[in-house]
Amino acid sequence: MTEPQFLIPLWADLTAVGLGGVQGALFASGFVGQRRLDLLGVAIIGIVMGLGGGMIRDLLLNTTPAALQSNWYLLTATGAALVGMLLANVFQRLNAVIVGLDAVVIGMFGAFGTTKAFALGLPPIPAIFVGVCAAVGGGLLRDVFMGLPVAMMHVGSLYAVAAGGGAAAYAVLDAFGVPAVPAAVACIGVTTVIRLLAVIFDISLPEQRALYRRKVAVETSAIPIIRS
Amino acid sequence: MTEPQFLIPLWADLTAVGLGGVQGALFASGFVGQRRLDLLGVAIIGIVMGLGGGMIRDLLLNTTPAALQSNWYLLTATGAALVGMLLANVFQRLNAVIVGLDAVVIGMFGAFGTTKAFALGLPPIPAIFVGVCAAVGGGLLRDVFMGLPVAMMHVGSLYAVAAGGGAAAYAVLDAFGVPAVPAAVACIGVTTVIRLLAVIFDISLPEQRALYRRKVAVETSAIPIIRS
Amino acid sequence: MTEPQFLIPLWADLTAVGLGGVQGALFASGFVGQRRLDLLGVAIIGIVMGLGGGMIRDLLLNTTPAALQSNWYLLTATGAALVGMLLANVFQRLNAVIVGLDAVVIGMFGAFGTTKAFALGLPPIPAIFVGVCAAVGGGLLRDVFMGLPVAMMHVGSLYAVAAGGGAAAYAVLDAFGVPAVPAAVACIGVTTVIRLLAVIFDISLPEQRALYRRKVAVETSAIPIIRS
Repeated sequence: MTEPQFLIPLWADLTAVGLGGVQGALFASGFVGQRRLDLLGVAIIGIVMGLGGGMIRDLLLNTTPAALQSNWYLLTATGAALVGMLLANVFQRLNAVIVGLDAVVIGMFGAFGTTKAFALGLPPIPAIFVGVCAAVGGGLLRDVFMGLPVAMMHVGSLYAVAAGGGAAAYAVLDAFGVPAVPAAVACIGVTTVIRLLAVIFDISLPEQRALYRRKVAVETSAIPIIRS
Repeated sequence: MTEPQFLIPLWADLTAVGLGGVQGALFASGFVGQRRLDLLGVAIIGIVMGLGGGMIRDLLLNTTPAALQSNWYLLTATGAALVGMLLANVFQRLNAVIVGLDAVVIGMFGAFGTTKAFALGLPPIPAIFVGVCAAVGGGLLRDVFMGLPVAMMHVGSLYAVAAGGGAAAYAVLDAFGVPAVPAAVACIGVTTVIRLLAVIFDISLPEQRALYRRKVAVETSAIPIIRS
Repeated sequence: MTEPQFLIPLWADLTAVGLGGVQGALFASGFVGQRRLDLLGVAIIGIVMGLGGGMIRDLLLNTTPAALQSNWYLLTATGAALVGMLLANVFQRLNAVIVGLDAVVIGMFGAFGTTKAFALGLPPIPAIFVGVCAAVGGGLLRDVFMGLPVAMMHVGSLYAVAAGGGAAAYAVLDAFGVPAVPAAVACIGVTTVIRLLAVIFDISLPEQRALYRRKVAVETSAIPIIRS
């Protein structure tokens, strides 16, 4: 039970948590008008994005969440969310930062999830599944908390595919005897590249498009009433 | 901890997972227009419906999810979801299949959940609760993932009542010393019959009615503006 | 693993569960029209509010949920939800009761969550986090089940702040060697006072305001079409 903690060094885990927290705060602070969140709402989203994936991973693996065994995880996620809020005012609407950060964070969460699942002795397919859940879990919780359509479902097989590709790469390398660290690095690389290619060649702001379509649908349904 | 795995044979568990996966894919592929899911979205819903109830059961029972201890669960759920997608094109809008499958799957998940809870030594009322959660958990997660109103809440004390009736039948039979297998069969039968009777005499497409009502409400609220 | 059960006496835990169940049923029965719930829906919300926070606490702490180790928890939550439904007909729209009950229940769940987390050896910041999750978890699940905007996010850093203040008070007292019972009482007091002050000086019906704003937004978006 303590071994997997050694496999994932605390600094690497905290880096992923911190980047996730920044990314969550950047995402949340982009909302204006009706869905505008107050400062604490943004902090909550930062914590959810920073810690949610790892908590889902540890619930699935039936271990006490790593994030609850040290004061540093919550402090890092909260501090990162505050930094994200400040950065959001500086880099207003700089989507490339959010998208790029998102891709790297998904890759790191997926890599650590897959690593920990293998370290606890899971077979390869469940280990890949745990990696994908760790990668997309934070975003899933974020969407549920914010009342948004779940991005993973509607636009975003992209997310699951990218995370699954990276986790599968880890599993293949693991089967060939590659140690955990290079396998995890490859996992992060594969996930980031797939996700960025998907964004570059397809969709840049998936959630907002989804919201726009919904609004159009409501307006369209109102037109016949007006004409009658 | 290993005993309950012996109580529920792998083939029975995988049958429930497979039927759940087919049912989820049939449900998901019925959505057109704005909520249309891509192929991977349908597969995700199939996996959620096939494995979600059992995972919630195992989280509540504080055991490592059975679905993560073998490669077969995820392979079965994914394969079944693919079959469900193909069947969906063949049996377009054949609601009887979806409803009937739904009833049997709820019964099986409820029976296995109650069995495992009793096997782990829970008192009868929590064991019934775990059975109900296992039965309705997959559908609950499906609705949250798809952004639908939670069927269990709005139309569907039906689901909870059917699952609760079956699980209670199991508990009564267990109290009279009936072995697990016939008790589980009785549980599946009671749940399926209650659910089918509820559908036949009351509501055939609950979720779509709920969505229709919502649309009407939006249109109605627009009328006064037009007249003013 | 059995020690924390001794720290929180069964009667105290069941009191919180019962008050939570009453509160949930009062909240749920206030909904009319399109979102109207049937009797079983109200009972489900009562169970969710009575037991949800404690279950989330125990999932995070990786212990079997206390609510599943005795028949009394589910019986208490269900009975309390039935009482809440009857009271709802008597005290129709008596918001002060709902708000006051809400504040006390949040305080109790937060206190018991923090106590159990400290008893299991968590560091102070994760222990406060578990207390906050135990306090707000039931309401979060309620909102997800009912398809409402998550109150905690949009209006309701209020909830998280109140619960966090109480849990932090517990942690400070614990650090000074104050025993669990007076520390828990102080935690309940701090949470209740913060929450009530927030309600008195700021917002009385947060969720309904949020729903109203959404409706206005839909109507507003329809106006340009009418004029064109």
